[in-house]
Amino acid sequence: MQSIYLKPKEQRRLQKGHLWVFSNELQNIPHTIAAGETVQLFTHDKKYIGTGFFNPHSLISFRLLTRNEETIDRKFFTKKILEAAALRKKIYSESDTNAWRLVHGESDGLPGLIIDRFNQGIVLQSFSAGMDLHLPLITDILQEMLHPEVMVVRNESTQRELEGLNLYKKIVSGDPSSTVQTIHDAGITCKVDLHEGQKTGFFLDQRENRKSIRSFCKGADVLDVFTNDGGFALNALYAGAARATLIDSSKEALERADNNARLNNFSEYRLIAADAFETLGIMTEQKESFDVVILDPPSFAKNRKNLATALKAYKRINKLGLQLVKSGGFLATASCSHHVSEEDFLNAIHQAALAAGRQLRLISKNSQPPDHPILLSMPETSYLKFACFYVTD
Amino acid sequence: MQSIYLKPKEQRRLQKGHLWVFSNELQNIPHTIAAGETVQLFTHDKKYIGTGFFNPHSLISFRLLTRNEETIDRKFFTKKILEAAALRKKIYSESDTNAWRLVHGESDGLPGLIIDRFNQGIVLQSFSAGMDLHLPLITDILQEMLHPEVMVVRNESTQRELEGLNLYKKIVSGDPSSTVQTIHDAGITCKVDLHEGQKTGFFLDQRENRKSIRSFCKGADVLDVFTNDGGFALNALYAGAARATLIDSSKEALERADNNARLNNFSEYRLIAADAFETLGIMTEQKESFDVVILDPPSFAKNRKNLATALKAYKRINKLGLQLVKSGGFLATASCSHHVSEEDFLNAIHQAALAAGRQLRLISKNSQPPDHPILLSMPETSYLKFACFYVTD
Repeated sequence: MQSIYLKPKEQRRLQKGHLWVFSNELQNIPHTIAAGETVQLFTHDKKYIGTGFFNPHSLISFRLLTRNEETIDRKFFTKKILEAAALRKKIYSESDTNAWRLVHGESDGLPGLIIDRFNQGIVLQSFSAGMDLHLPLITDILQEMLHPEVMVVRNESTQRELEGLNLYKKIVSGDPSSTVQTIHDAGITCKVDLHEGQKTGFFLDQRENRKSIRSFCKGADVLDVFTNDGGFALNALYAGAARATLIDSSKEALERADNNARLNNFSEYRLIAADAFETLGIMTEQKESFDVVILDPPSFAKNRKNLATALKAYKRINKLGLQLVKSGGFLATASCSHHVSEEDFLNAIHQAALAAGRQLRLISKNSQPPDHPILLSMPETSYLKFACFYVTD
Repeated sequence: MQSIYLKPKEQRRLQKGHLWVFSNELQNIPHTIAAGETVQLFTHDKKYIGTGFFNPHSLISFRLLTRNEETIDRKFFTKKILEAAALRKKIYSESDTNAWRLVHGESDGLPGLIIDRFNQGIVLQSFSAGMDLHLPLITDILQEMLHPEVMVVRNESTQRELEGLNLYKKIVSGDPSSTVQTIHDAGITCKVDLHEGQKTGFFLDQRENRKSIRSFCKGADVLDVFTNDGGFALNALYAGAARATLIDSSKEALERADNNARLNNFSEYRLIAADAFETLGIMTEQKESFDVVILDPPSFAKNRKNLATALKAYKRINKLGLQLVKSGGFLATASCSHHVSEEDFLNAIHQAALAAGRQLRLISKNSQPPDHPILLSMPETSYLKFACFYVTD
């Protein structure tokens, strides 16, 4: 196995639990190491730090897999996947749900690897050259461990381009007719298309947040903006909402939401295929109002450079949302931008409330569910912000 | 009504939603205004900001009640209490619970006033001279609105001394034999002593957090440190914990916890009346270990000055707690110190994990429940931090 060396003092972040080495932190990199090769990392004075994946094409040159001197083989991956599975098994029971993120990359000690379980289907995503090389081994382990009906690799994220990796999706094992799985979560049933749905097919990260809105949705007229598969609206209707209005710019998303609503025998809903900003503006002009407004926009800040623009967008969408909440109603609002801190996000909402002339009481805030754990040592593993407000004049 | 004037530019924080004026932000204060008097606040150039309570003896000279030109009378307090009650009514149903904080001071637009409802009993706390003067009016409104069996004023907080107010407790109406109320919350029954219990008799602020540990307590051997009334342990046992160990330095607290456990027909628990730090140290020496360790210490930072000492204490208690968690177990840990930010708190836990040589996955974090809302405009209204971790070697 080849070795790489850090510059003096660059081991500090790793010693505190971080798992990445950036290219500028390494001493001269040998050109003989291929992308994805497993290498040993040492301090400048040749003390062993750990073993991990190297990629000469990436800003993240090295991703740590272990601090022990062990081989990165079937035994290693099996141990790590079992450890991640043990956490999920302790939190979720099959009667509650049959869908969760089995492996959440860095947070589960498997940098650059995502594994989602949807009933009898498994979806994988790889974000590093090293993980790409080990995908056959990993899917083999999963086949033996879980006997899924189908396994799909969804390697379509543009983040892969930063690692010099190609984009593709592929059914790697099982029955291609099983790629649509039926999942259930806390009483709600959904169809998940592992091959055609967004990202891995379904957003599991809002699981707790979707459930949390139930407490104030009974009898409510609910507006679910950026609804995607309809997750929040379904939970509102499950809790007894009088009506839900679902907005999404994607007709395909609304079709999935529609199918999910029918699957759960809900009928009191309407679908609006349109731009969210525009539609909320029109609704405000027409003096529409709702008991509950939910905002779950896509990431407005894809990188740190456009943070200021993103914060303006969060202020704008939250102002629009707040204008539509009846006095004595609720706003539930999310941000999935890693680059936007909770403080920034809450500040944008505060600005929005001042601009909209509404009074806010923050009644809950949350981050990611237990199957998307966060490492305190790696702020990069934290991205989701969610907050609920009681809104008055 | 008398008037007070801000120095130039000092209106900015208030215009963004803050409710306090500090003594150094006011122009010369007329000596004719008594403590607790209702006054009108103006900018330096005589623009009306609002009406509120003045106190010449307090660092917080003025607490804003309204930005409208309205009288602070029965109608005003009735409106404010009804608005606060409306939020609770939308979130809680009597079948879920019959105990909540009805008014949470500044967060409900009634600065310095706390009202807790425990079944048929009401407990009030006042933290300002102005609120003290209006307590007879407020209890009269509550009597008419809620017809409680008993109302108790618990004005014993040393914070009152900062306002020049005396400390006392008093049954202000109803039947003195009704001061012990039986409450229920999400399946658990507790006795609350409105007259003798800590603060208002029961800590309602950990309601959601206590419930949240249920997801990982089934079959677990649980250690509940600083247990007080036993709230966390009761929830663990309710979720099917194999055993709970309750630690508190107060024998009275353990007696309440014991009574509560019996009331819910739990028997698999033991009580340890001892210092938490000392006991956890001994347990570590004796190589005891638990599936779940819960730390809910009293505030370690009573003021900003002892923040550094407080952070050391948080690091120390969390290191002790982490040493006692089995690999594959959970740590649930809280801080109720306003002066300790979430970032500081999580950083102390991170330091503790490094010192204890444990790996942490943050699986949830939370703040205050909906009946203790937070104002984005007033960081002073936020104090509770709670985090759960999956712990491995």
